[in-house]
Amino acid sequence: MLRLATAGESHGPALVGVLSGLPAGLVLDRDAIDADLARRQQGQGRSPRQRIEQDRVEVLAGLRHGRTLGTPLAIVVRNRDHENWQWGMSPWRPEGEPEGKGTKPVTLPRPGHADLAGALKYGHEDIRDVLERASARQTAITVAAGAVAKALLAHLGVAVAGAIVDEGSVEDARADRDTVGGVIEVRASGAPPGLGSYASREDRLDARLGAALMGIQAVKGVEIGDGFALAGLRGSEAHDEILPGFTRETNRAGGIEGGVSNGEEIVVRAAMKPLPTLMQPLRSVDLRSGAPGEALVERSDVSAVEALSVVAEAAVAFELARAAREKFGGDALGDFVAAHRAYLERIPWRPR
Amino acid sequence: MLRLATAGESHGPALVGVLSGLPAGLVLDRDAIDADLARRQQGQGRSPRQRIEQDRVEVLAGLRHGRTLGTPLAIVVRNRDHENWQWGMSPWRPEGEPEGKGTKPVTLPRPGHADLAGALKYGHEDIRDVLERASARQTAITVAAGAVAKALLAHLGVAVAGAIVDEGSVEDARADRDTVGGVIEVRASGAPPGLGSYASREDRLDARLGAALMGIQAVKGVEIGDGFALAGLRGSEAHDEILPGFTRETNRAGGIEGGVSNGEEIVVRAAMKPLPTLMQPLRSVDLRSGAPGEALVERSDVSAVEALSVVAEAAVAFELARAAREKFGGDALGDFVAAHRAYLERIPWRPR
Amino acid sequence: MLRLATAGESHGPALVGVLSGLPAGLVLDRDAIDADLARRQQGQGRSPRQRIEQDRVEVLAGLRHGRTLGTPLAIVVRNRDHENWQWGMSPWRPEGEPEGKGTKPVTLPRPGHADLAGALKYGHEDIRDVLERASARQTAITVAAGAVAKALLAHLGVAVAGAIVDEGSVEDARADRDTVGGVIEVRASGAPPGLGSYASREDRLDARLGAALMGIQAVKGVEIGDGFALAGLRGSEAHDEILPGFTRETNRAGGIEGGVSNGEEIVVRAAMKPLPTLMQPLRSVDLRSGAPGEALVERSDVSAVEALSVVAEAAVAFELARAAREKFGGDALGDFVAAHRAYLERIPWRPR
Amino acid sequence: MLRLATAGESHGPALVGVLSGLPAGLVLDRDAIDADLARRQQGQGRSPRQRIEQDRVEVLAGLRHGRTLGTPLAIVVRNRDHENWQWGMSPWRPEGEPEGKGTKPVTLPRPGHADLAGALKYGHEDIRDVLERASARQTAITVAAGAVAKALLAHLGVAVAGAIVDEGSVEDARADRDTVGGVIEVRASGAPPGLGSYASREDRLDARLGAALMGIQAVKGVEIGDGFALAGLRGSEAHDEILPGFTRETNRAGGIEGGVSNGEEIVVRAAMKPLPTLMQPLRSVDLRSGAPGEALVERSDVSAVEALSVVAEAAVAFELARAAREKFGGDALGDFVAAHRAYLERIPWRPR
Repeated sequence: MLRLATAGESHGPALVGVLSGLPAGLVLDRDAIDADLARRQQGQGRSPRQRIEQDRVEVLAGLRHGRTLGTPLAIVVRNRDHENWQWGMSPWRPEGEPEGKGTKPVTLPRPGHADLAGALKYGHEDIRDVLERASARQTAITVAAGAVAKALLAHLGVAVAGAIVDEGSVEDARADRDTVGGVIEVRASGAPPGLGSYASREDRLDARLGAALMGIQAVKGVEIGDGFALAGLRGSEAHDEILPGFTRETNRAGGIEGGVSNGEEIVVRAAMKPLPTLMQPLRSVDLRSGAPGEALVERSDVSAVEALSVVAEAAVAFELARAAREKFGGDALGDFVAAHRAYLERIPWRPR
Repeated sequence: MLRLATAGESHGPALVGVLSGLPAGLVLDRDAIDADLARRQQGQGRSPRQRIEQDRVEVLAGLRHGRTLGTPLAIVVRNRDHENWQWGMSPWRPEGEPEGKGTKPVTLPRPGHADLAGALKYGHEDIRDVLERASARQTAITVAAGAVAKALLAHLGVAVAGAIVDEGSVEDARADRDTVGGVIEVRASGAPPGLGSYASREDRLDARLGAALMGIQAVKGVEIGDGFALAGLRGSEAHDEILPGFTRETNRAGGIEGGVSNGEEIVVRAAMKPLPTLMQPLRSVDLRSGAPGEALVERSDVSAVEALSVVAEAAVAFELARAAREKFGGDALGDFVAAHRAYLERIPWRPR
Repeated sequence: MLRLATAGESHGPALVGVLSGLPAGLVLDRDAIDADLARRQQGQGRSPRQRIEQDRVEVLAGLRHGRTLGTPLAIVVRNRDHENWQWGMSPWRPEGEPEGKGTKPVTLPRPGHADLAGALKYGHEDIRDVLERASARQTAITVAAGAVAKALLAHLGVAVAGAIVDEGSVEDARADRDTVGGVIEVRASGAPPGLGSYASREDRLDARLGAALMGIQAVKGVEIGDGFALAGLRGSEAHDEILPGFTRETNRAGGIEGGVSNGEEIVVRAAMKPLPTLMQPLRSVDLRSGAPGEALVERSDVSAVEALSVVAEAAVAFELARAAREKFGGDALGDFVAAHRAYLERIPWRPR
Repeated sequence: MLRLATAGESHGPALVGVLSGLPAGLVLDRDAIDADLARRQQGQGRSPRQRIEQDRVEVLAGLRHGRTLGTPLAIVVRNRDHENWQWGMSPWRPEGEPEGKGTKPVTLPRPGHADLAGALKYGHEDIRDVLERASARQTAITVAAGAVAKALLAHLGVAVAGAIVDEGSVEDARADRDTVGGVIEVRASGAPPGLGSYASREDRLDARLGAALMGIQAVKGVEIGDGFALAGLRGSEAHDEILPGFTRETNRAGGIEGGVSNGEEIVVRAAMKPLPTLMQPLRSVDLRSGAPGEALVERSDVSAVEALSVVAEAAVAFELARAAREKFGGDALGDFVAAHRAYLERIPWRPR
């Protein structure tokens, strides 16, 4: 029932999200949302632009004096840079602007981006029409929505946190005008057994988390629990035995068995490829002339692994909140929380 | 628009799928579907049951003399074993059967399965009520639907094939009454650039493939192209430069950039944990009494990696067909194929 | 969360439904479902075929000894007539059958049916490829699913019943080889306030009921409460004043205000056009030759108004069950019922 | 594929819509959208507030210099009145504002509105938390999205227009401090046969239009073609015979047969109840005390029938555009238009 519709170009006026399915009566903290937006912008590998942006959440609907109304929440994150880009990126042609788009068309697709495929798909002649939306800039909305999801999950005692597991050497790479990738991990504690379902594939929590993480820009791999390492083990060493009190001593499954949360900590990881916009450009071919050339060079980050840890945390929080909304229902926050409590009383499981 | 709704327990009467959104006029080959069903059942690690089952597809709707009607296709795969299980697993209580379910209740949840989480979630006292649906038996419908998807994709020149990349030593493990996992790969050739979209996360082809593969039983990791290996590379070595004629010499991205197919071969991999049903059982706890015990031992496979390669192939084919239906529309097969052809004429890309 | 995917041609092997989202532990009564199927087939305006069919529900999945498993329920209603139609309507071409479809192609579209539009849309040359699915025969699955929904609603004290409000004179029309239509009404008692929502249009209960009824074959009008009559009244006479105890003396709104159930009886009506298959055929044009002719004459009913009352009852029950599942959540029947009870304790409303 | 997510309270900062699924390259005309917004606000029965508002569309995403990017379009209509309501309706509590919401709580639910049901459902103590979203104010976004849909449909030669069929006497009612309702009609010309489908209920064009119209505030009845009048006719007089050239002399079906557009003009009607906010208030009961009282009186319109004709026109346009996007696919406007043209060449139907 929790749904998020998003829109927004990187240098357009704003990023927009409509988040439906929240219960009424949830109190949101603007500072907490902004703090997550700030975390997304930080990291040693980020370019100066990130510090300029200073993202702030704006709410246009669904909230009254900090409390949700049970109606769709409209969240907006302005692109402060837009004022410098109006000539080229304004939704409506500025008055007095001559023909053409006011910015030099981008015609050399960058390898590793949606540039080429997107231009062919949509028939765009200016690759800017692709890259503006395909940009990871849009993850700011993911993060804002994730902060809301975390506020909801807190009422169930669920906490979600992302962290870097492995990152390339940013300074070394910056010196070479190169980029690095890395691996991040998200852990969620307090989730009760029974989120997600094996009943249908689209209800499986592992499938949903797989989509949530693989759908983030630059992610090329996802694993749950011990993931790929499990493929090389024997069955006798790969599972989490069930001990008295329905506890476990291991958590190789990462808290999900058969597509359903099992009450243990939920652990997922995502692999990020190095950012494809390089200061020493890759070879490309001009979309218009077919002539070889070099891909667009824009000032870019050396690494966005830390940002990914924040975005992935938000994406996981959203999926857990969605599964919890489905399981516990309720239109008022109190109904939702009461159903969760009644469930915990029914089952022999206690949060640790 | 392509949708698949499924149902079916492992020892119930049948597995059922309703596949909507096919164009009219697609000719299906019953033998080709059955051949894929047979491939799923083979493999050196399979138990004797698989040979007994001899799955066959049955069609109840949507097809007339082998040609789709443009209406939902109802596919059924009977559980031939059901006749031996009627006393315990029939949908309606057999006449003359006394109280109780006719089979001894399963109360010791198997680690690595949905058993424990499912029993708590749904309030089941007999774990059989969980394991019957959570079983990988249901992938037979995935395979049947995938065979239909492949028949559709063939009209676009797209071919999909799964293979084992890595598998544990089955014979060694069988000797130890143990199980093994492995890694499989699916490759799809001929897919045009422009399947999927970066416009919304739920339209991204990588997110959809992530869900499709992670949602298969026992899969704990998914990667696209070079996947996790990319996380350790520099940007200058991790991308696929674009060369004259819009060709590439490398395919580290696995045919997907920015969530969209880029015209190169689509390459995805999935990691399978070793099967959790062991002949030397894992420790567990009785759901009713709370007393420690050993998990249920049923005759099971030593490995299902080969089966996974077939199931994953089907799942990938389904997602590609879904994306193609969205892109090319059309209610008659001819409309769909004509839109594909017109698109290829519009763009500077040729299938290789 | 309650979803129904359906398939099935009128003379194909069977009608099929996959019903997802039921809680576990709901006991179903096969006789009750069959009784509704029988009600659908009765009525003074029905043709002899209806008595031949004697529909019976068959369950292939989701049920064990009459109790739901929380997994998708697969329901099948066989077309007993199929054995006489195998030559022409079997999914796979019967062995030994020559080219062609074994039945004379229908090329004269019947006015009032999907025949013409469907043949153009899907590129069918034999209109039988259209009429088999477009037929009201498929409402048998709607009725079976509705019977399941009623079983669920009974646990909330909600009862749904359809009835004829107005029907043409069947015997007079039969004498003239003509057909009649009519108006039916469905009433649901016991529904708590708060089903549906004004938050988004797709959540509105009135919109959903509008779709559910307008989507039934031959329905051309739908109204809620006093419906069209309200358009001619003044505001001072058109609403239901709220009296002490939050009761009402009138129910002009039909139990729905602002898209949400208000605790009063839910009342909806649907208008059915006279059946378009007439024994004295209407004028048509041959799809192949363009020559004028007369539309196909098959033995048909004089009236299906009584059947509509049963189908509409089922459709309304389904939508109410869907809204209740969204509101009360829960994976086990007990969770769902407990959430309903807790809600009733929270609000100042009592079922009457 | 065309989807619209909406948000917005009546006196909050703005109404918001995210419209996904448009092809790239569609040129939008801001003045045309604003003109429809102005039409919605006009009408002899409207209150002075409507003239104050002067709605204007604002676009935050998906558009570049008036041309769609193929990415989600974010549309915003500001509530100009919000500046007068900030104390009570701001999303975040204004700095320095004391406890409480700054507006006197509304505790007397208005009959005919969502007030009572919504307050119970969501646990709201201040009915303003209900009425702000349930208000017909939100139809401004429907109208803006409909204007975009009409721009798309224009490329297929489809035009949609709403009109009043019947309206009570506004001046007489105003004199009595009362309100009136009425009946409106929407006609769409140029729609090809084959929009919508009988394959599944959710694909039926009649069901979708039923939901689209019944989901508009104050609508209590919907009919297609001759609608309720057909229920009283004989079959021989109720259908549209097919004449040479596949033309018709009558259009009793309103352009839809079997849930599919048949190439004739599409004609739908909706009945609007008189507005329930009366200057001479209806009886109600205080939500907090249970004491009888009179419902809230706010300055309101005497009639909104003319507005409904504009909103319904937009809702119908949206559904036709949605069905057309499903049928013709395509990511670039040119692909979409070419598929439509190719279809028209395939079938023996010509727009009139």
